[in-house]
Amino acid sequence: MSHTHIPIYRAVMEDSTRWAEATRALLTERRQKLFNFIGSPGAGKTALLEALARALKGRVQFAVIEGDCAGTRDAERLAAEGVQAVQIVTGAGCHLPAESVHQVLRDLPATGLDFVLVENVGNLVCPAAFDIGETAKLAVLSVTEGEDKPLKYPTLFRQAAATVLTKVDLLPHLRFNLAKCRAALHQIKAAAPVFELSGKTGQGIGAFADWLLRQK
Amino acid sequence: MSHTHIPIYRAVMEDSTRWAEATRALLTERRQKLFNFIGSPGAGKTALLEALARALKGRVQFAVIEGDCAGTRDAERLAAEGVQAVQIVTGAGCHLPAESVHQVLRDLPATGLDFVLVENVGNLVCPAAFDIGETAKLAVLSVTEGEDKPLKYPTLFRQAAATVLTKVDLLPHLRFNLAKCRAALHQIKAAAPVFELSGKTGQGIGAFADWLLRQK
Repeated sequence: MSHTHIPIYRAVMEDSTRWAEATRALLTERRQKLFNFIGSPGAGKTALLEALARALKGRVQFAVIEGDCAGTRDAERLAAEGVQAVQIVTGAGCHLPAESVHQVLRDLPATGLDFVLVENVGNLVCPAAFDIGETAKLAVLSVTEGEDKPLKYPTLFRQAAATVLTKVDLLPHLRFNLAKCRAALHQIKAAAPVFELSGKTGQGIGAFADWLLRQK
Repeated sequence: MSHTHIPIYRAVMEDSTRWAEATRALLTERRQKLFNFIGSPGAGKTALLEALARALKGRVQFAVIEGDCAGTRDAERLAAEGVQAVQIVTGAGCHLPAESVHQVLRDLPATGLDFVLVENVGNLVCPAAFDIGETAKLAVLSVTEGEDKPLKYPTLFRQAAATVLTKVDLLPHLRFNLAKCRAALHQIKAAAPVFELSGKTGQGIGAFADWLLRQK
């Protein structure tokens, strides 16, 4: 456990499109983009952000907002990569509320920051239903979860600007069928590009980082 | 996709302890036990139930209630094992509501059924907060999700009567540290027994099935 100082925000539990709109206005004013990474617990979101941090270093200025029910472990992992990281603790809250995200964004530098990468609470259902004023939602699905997940949790995958398939280094040990996964995404009319990568090995991170940079 | 007839119940979105209490009363009256399996999407809950179905066959009479945002895929998988399976579809709902579970239970046979195994919506957060009148909650965590999950989502693991670690066949390919996972469970004061198993290979299923039978 590192002893880096991590700012902690307690999540406010009132959700409001007002705060999402305030965030959108602030992002436009500051010319910043905010990406909302959503996926199950253990989908590899933090490992993806760690790998992205290394891939984006020197190419774009960014900060990370971590959402968790408890603890500051994820923000510490990002801080260890030299990234400015803020933790929002939600307690029993199953998603990041727009107000908390706005509070954190307001306190981040108004200039010299291009991207804010938000890791939502590990949950494939609820965060998809709550607008936090993001530029785009990004769906994160690990191949260990199975190729049927877009059919079972379509709300997120339909809205996402991209779907990121993580942990592809484990594919040789799994029954995961990539073609079926793409067919499932097609079936629910998810038009977004699909990136296959591994946060652990770094495989495929470059292509996703390049795509993200093009959203600047 | 099999063409077995699967009864589908649309989830009612009002949560109420009244329904949980009605379920508890019905279970007592019928001498049935209801187990609420909770875990992330892709934690291997359905594979666990498939393996359990094979291990429990002929030793206990049971039915399965499947909860999903969309589709009847999981109920079909269980029906293919010869199990009486009912699907509850929650739409955007992130957990099984007590009223829907009660409706299904009421329509299941009053006699000749010992266990009702409920697979909640894939979600490590919300289902832990909603009482459905279950005999016990069971936490399902796949080793692919990482050993830190009890620290990040303590609510479920504190309440669970047992923690089931799934997909242990993948351990040789992961950085998952079993000792750290047990330490995390200890740290959050989760006193429940921990079962390590694989729905795919069947390893460890016997010990968990035996424990479940002892709860009869």
